[in-house]
Amino acid sequence: MSSNYRNFRNSVPWLILSLEAVFIILFYFLFSDDGPPRSSISYPAFQDVNHMVIFGFGFFLTFLKRYGFSSTGFNLLIIVLGVQCSMLTEGLLVFLLQRANEDGLKRITKAAVSMTAVVISTGAVLGKTNPVQLILMTVVEIIVFHMSRWINKIFLGVPDDISMMHVHLFGAYFGLAVSSCFSEPPPRSEKNASTPKSDLLSMLGTVFLWVFWPSFNSVLAVANKRKVIYNTYFALAVSAVTAFVLSVLTTKDGKFRMTHIHSAVLAGGVTVGYAACSIEYPWIAMILGLLASVITILGSYCLQRCLNPALKIHDSSGVHSTFGFPAVLGALAQVILLAIKNWTNLPRLGYLVMFHIGAFCVTISVALITGFITGLILNLKPFKTIPVSKYFEDQFYWEVSFSVKL
Amino acid sequence: MSSNYRNFRNSVPWLILSLEAVFIILFYFLFSDDGPPRSSISYPAFQDVNHMVIFGFGFFLTFLKRYGFSSTGFNLLIIVLGVQCSMLTEGLLVFLLQRANEDGLKRITKAAVSMTAVVISTGAVLGKTNPVQLILMTVVEIIVFHMSRWINKIFLGVPDDISMMHVHLFGAYFGLAVSSCFSEPPPRSEKNASTPKSDLLSMLGTVFLWVFWPSFNSVLAVANKRKVIYNTYFALAVSAVTAFVLSVLTTKDGKFRMTHIHSAVLAGGVTVGYAACSIEYPWIAMILGLLASVITILGSYCLQRCLNPALKIHDSSGVHSTFGFPAVLGALAQVILLAIKNWTNLPRLGYLVMFHIGAFCVTISVALITGFITGLILNLKPFKTIPVSKYFEDQFYWEVSFSVKL
Amino acid sequence: MSSNYRNFRNSVPWLILSLEAVFIILFYFLFSDDGPPRSSISYPAFQDVNHMVIFGFGFFLTFLKRYGFSSTGFNLLIIVLGVQCSMLTEGLLVFLLQRANEDGLKRITKAAVSMTAVVISTGAVLGKTNPVQLILMTVVEIIVFHMSRWINKIFLGVPDDISMMHVHLFGAYFGLAVSSCFSEPPPRSEKNASTPKSDLLSMLGTVFLWVFWPSFNSVLAVANKRKVIYNTYFALAVSAVTAFVLSVLTTKDGKFRMTHIHSAVLAGGVTVGYAACSIEYPWIAMILGLLASVITILGSYCLQRCLNPALKIHDSSGVHSTFGFPAVLGALAQVILLAIKNWTNLPRLGYLVMFHIGAFCVTISVALITGFITGLILNLKPFKTIPVSKYFEDQFYWEVSFSVKL
Repeated sequence: MSSNYRNFRNSVPWLILSLEAVFIILFYFLFSDDGPPRSSISYPAFQDVNHMVIFGFGFFLTFLKRYGFSSTGFNLLIIVLGVQCSMLTEGLLVFLLQRANEDGLKRITKAAVSMTAVVISTGAVLGKTNPVQLILMTVVEIIVFHMSRWINKIFLGVPDDISMMHVHLFGAYFGLAVSSCFSEPPPRSEKNASTPKSDLLSMLGTVFLWVFWPSFNSVLAVANKRKVIYNTYFALAVSAVTAFVLSVLTTKDGKFRMTHIHSAVLAGGVTVGYAACSIEYPWIAMILGLLASVITILGSYCLQRCLNPALKIHDSSGVHSTFGFPAVLGALAQVILLAIKNWTNLPRLGYLVMFHIGAFCVTISVALITGFITGLILNLKPFKTIPVSKYFEDQFYWEVSFSVKL
Repeated sequence: MSSNYRNFRNSVPWLILSLEAVFIILFYFLFSDDGPPRSSISYPAFQDVNHMVIFGFGFFLTFLKRYGFSSTGFNLLIIVLGVQCSMLTEGLLVFLLQRANEDGLKRITKAAVSMTAVVISTGAVLGKTNPVQLILMTVVEIIVFHMSRWINKIFLGVPDDISMMHVHLFGAYFGLAVSSCFSEPPPRSEKNASTPKSDLLSMLGTVFLWVFWPSFNSVLAVANKRKVIYNTYFALAVSAVTAFVLSVLTTKDGKFRMTHIHSAVLAGGVTVGYAACSIEYPWIAMILGLLASVITILGSYCLQRCLNPALKIHDSSGVHSTFGFPAVLGALAQVILLAIKNWTNLPRLGYLVMFHIGAFCVTISVALITGFITGLILNLKPFKTIPVSKYFEDQFYWEVSFSVKL
Repeated sequence: MSSNYRNFRNSVPWLILSLEAVFIILFYFLFSDDGPPRSSISYPAFQDVNHMVIFGFGFFLTFLKRYGFSSTGFNLLIIVLGVQCSMLTEGLLVFLLQRANEDGLKRITKAAVSMTAVVISTGAVLGKTNPVQLILMTVVEIIVFHMSRWINKIFLGVPDDISMMHVHLFGAYFGLAVSSCFSEPPPRSEKNASTPKSDLLSMLGTVFLWVFWPSFNSVLAVANKRKVIYNTYFALAVSAVTAFVLSVLTTKDGKFRMTHIHSAVLAGGVTVGYAACSIEYPWIAMILGLLASVITILGSYCLQRCLNPALKIHDSSGVHSTFGFPAVLGALAQVILLAIKNWTNLPRLGYLVMFHIGAFCVTISVALITGFITGLILNLKPFKTIPVSKYFEDQFYWEVSFSVKL
């Protein structure tokens, strides 16, 4: 195994390098102009999203006690590759379909938002994939995500900013489908655990994500940015409160569990993402935040007890309950809110419901099918190199000095 | 005690949940419109304050070695509850007194700024309160703070942005009054200490607060935002320099002490908050920063030696010297600066001095009296559930895995 | 030694205090007005740079296992002193040369950008200098850096925003020249090492710097801010990818090395700083980013093997390869890009090449010469107080509680 992996390692850099060379060549052909000089995205808004994706998610995933280097390092690696890949895919589609060019900053911002899908998928297979698998997954996922968005756009007429909000849904179910193809780690693995220090560092990332989530939801909104910010803030606030409540109710001796807090405080932001621009009153956003947090914590309870063992899915950082369930709830809530608003105008209502449910179904089925295929490919012999005993371990990839006991 | 606390724990979630239900219902009645469409607050300015309160203060308070989860977690919990409560209190007062509505973003920003008072008070009782006590304190304090502001506004005519700057003063003395009702921890408790790692994490929070303090002071300023930023920056800079100087002078063998740095680098920002918009030249702000740092470090020295043991007040994170003294100094400095500016116009000077000293006295007495009453209530039997031996310990509230020795 | 140092410690605070007194007095005379009311710098842009310098660099330098307090603490101290010193130097030069005044925010921003030079130099002597040496170095370096910029401006006509981009070049070579005068630590010192935790904290700082680097490069740009942001982002992205590739290729058993990632992910930002506003297409920035990363990692390999032992330079945090080489490459790339653009107009090309090579030579020679002199002065008996055995140790300067084993 060791020599097998050594050979493999020798091929890693050349894979990345040739990918990067292809990217540079494609950039040369595709991005010869800057697009329109004025942008609809302000630089601080872009910066917030960039910060969230690189820093927030990077440290959000550091909860494993021996996987901190890989969590933050590989997160950076796949994002910088993925952003380029995302811009190229989008650029190619724009070129092929003869759409109007966008300016540079908007392109990068859209690419960074799209990368959230990949980062969420990464969470599902955290600690179980080697860098080459991660990079392949990134490239495949980002291309498929853009294709799913363009199918939505061309066949269903879903506008850009709405189809982008499917990013959590797509990321979570793609990641789960990939993860279902990986062998499970032993149930009580000592390495698949957190320490107080790593949990605190992960809390640091979580708080970052929490603070910047209103920017994330509003950055691509074409109208009502203020309303999106306002609604997202309240949904996040109530889901944070509910997270603490439910954590006490579901743990054995009524203590708070850090994992619950990490996942449920963000649920409100995911759920409200779909409908944030059309919610009129803050109390609706607050109720959505509450429901999101409930579905996340109860969902994670059910998944761990029943569903995951039955389906043999191992979901390293609980992306199913953190991003999957809230996104489904959000899509559902959007349809219900539309139904309430348009119930006097039945033909229009029918059209709107079809349109949103259609987009939802397209996205989730593309995610599941392509995710499963990707998972199968990643488990082919040339890529599959980590034995289960080496899961969740930095030392397999990084030079780690353990001169001082931790 | 254990069964007593178990029963108590069962009631915690229902308290929070019913509070949240009341909030949502009140939001339904109070915030049916968005207020004027244009805001005087920019989103990045709001974001800075939000970031400070959630992230900066959350990690500022992580210096206790076994209280990191509670410091950051409970900080998030009380802020999300408190912001809602603050918006409702302000909304009710606006409704009752028939004032003009403000837009959504300004409401949240004001609520976040007000929450600083609660966060500071939390610092004084850090590690000694259970979550229910914290939540009750938050709700009471935020309501009383808004009432104190409205007394200032109606009876003394203090404008909104000036009365908001009393937030540190109010927070510090309310917290101290509450803390005086709690039993003291044993003097040399091993748990009431920091480790190098926890100090470094607290430094991370401190640096965040330091960097964003100019945003905090300027976000609600109606005029001269630039001047406020400029003056706050210099006051902070000089107080950071002075902090290092005085730390060497006051410690036994001339070393730097991390606690001094944590508290004194921020003192300048607190002090200059009152007068930042009217200071003409940076050198005045610099001298204020220097004095603020001096009063903080000498104050903390005196408090620990003489005052606190005499008054039997245990101030977990030294809020008296970090926020109390600099705020008193700032209020005083503002009066002196006004006196220098208006000494030719004695009637106007008399009025201005009366007005500022009046606002100061109202704020501090409301803080001390209501803080003391709140402290007494929180120590009634149904709420008082932590034995002194369990102070400063995460394990009492959180599932902590100590499989790995730290 | 101990009593010698005790006496010395007693003088530290008075040195800082008198320096601060001089600063306040000079501020009184120099900054009596605010300059023009409108600024070309937006507050969020300034905030990004401020955040980078204080927080990003502070934690970037925390990789030494026992030097975290000093890395973050002294970084804050020298920056707040240096910013004041930089504003005064610039103000004096403006006054002496009768130039137009700038507004307050622009002054602080320029001072913060200039301080990057000092922070980089600090990296070269990290752990080997006492606070007094650091402060003296800060004051001397910032004055010399401004003088070098004014020589460039007056004799060569280099505009302000271009001469400011020499900040990395100046900082790196000044720091190396200073470092060459310090005695080397023993080669396999246990203290001159990192732990996984300290590396992770340093990664946190690195990621911050990475995210905000586009702000750094664009904040003082007078035109094409968007293009600068865009190009810097791509250069950073490609240099991050290349860092991972080369790390695998240059380490013994094909693992990633954290030090490589720390230094090389930023190299692209440094290199592209010179030419960012004139690069037309992203692919050029991407190739620059790739080359920057290559030169950083290969450079660090060569330096450790050959050059540093030969020259007896000990470079604590590898600033030569992290900032020195990429800056040289950037300056070279700028000349080549200019040559390609202007090759039809030979007289103009000749002038431009002379102008840029002249500025480069002036900056690097001033840095090396004054740095060496500064290093000699800092090693005079009254300043030189740390024995080599106490290098890289917080306990020498800070009260550190090691009650808990780390």
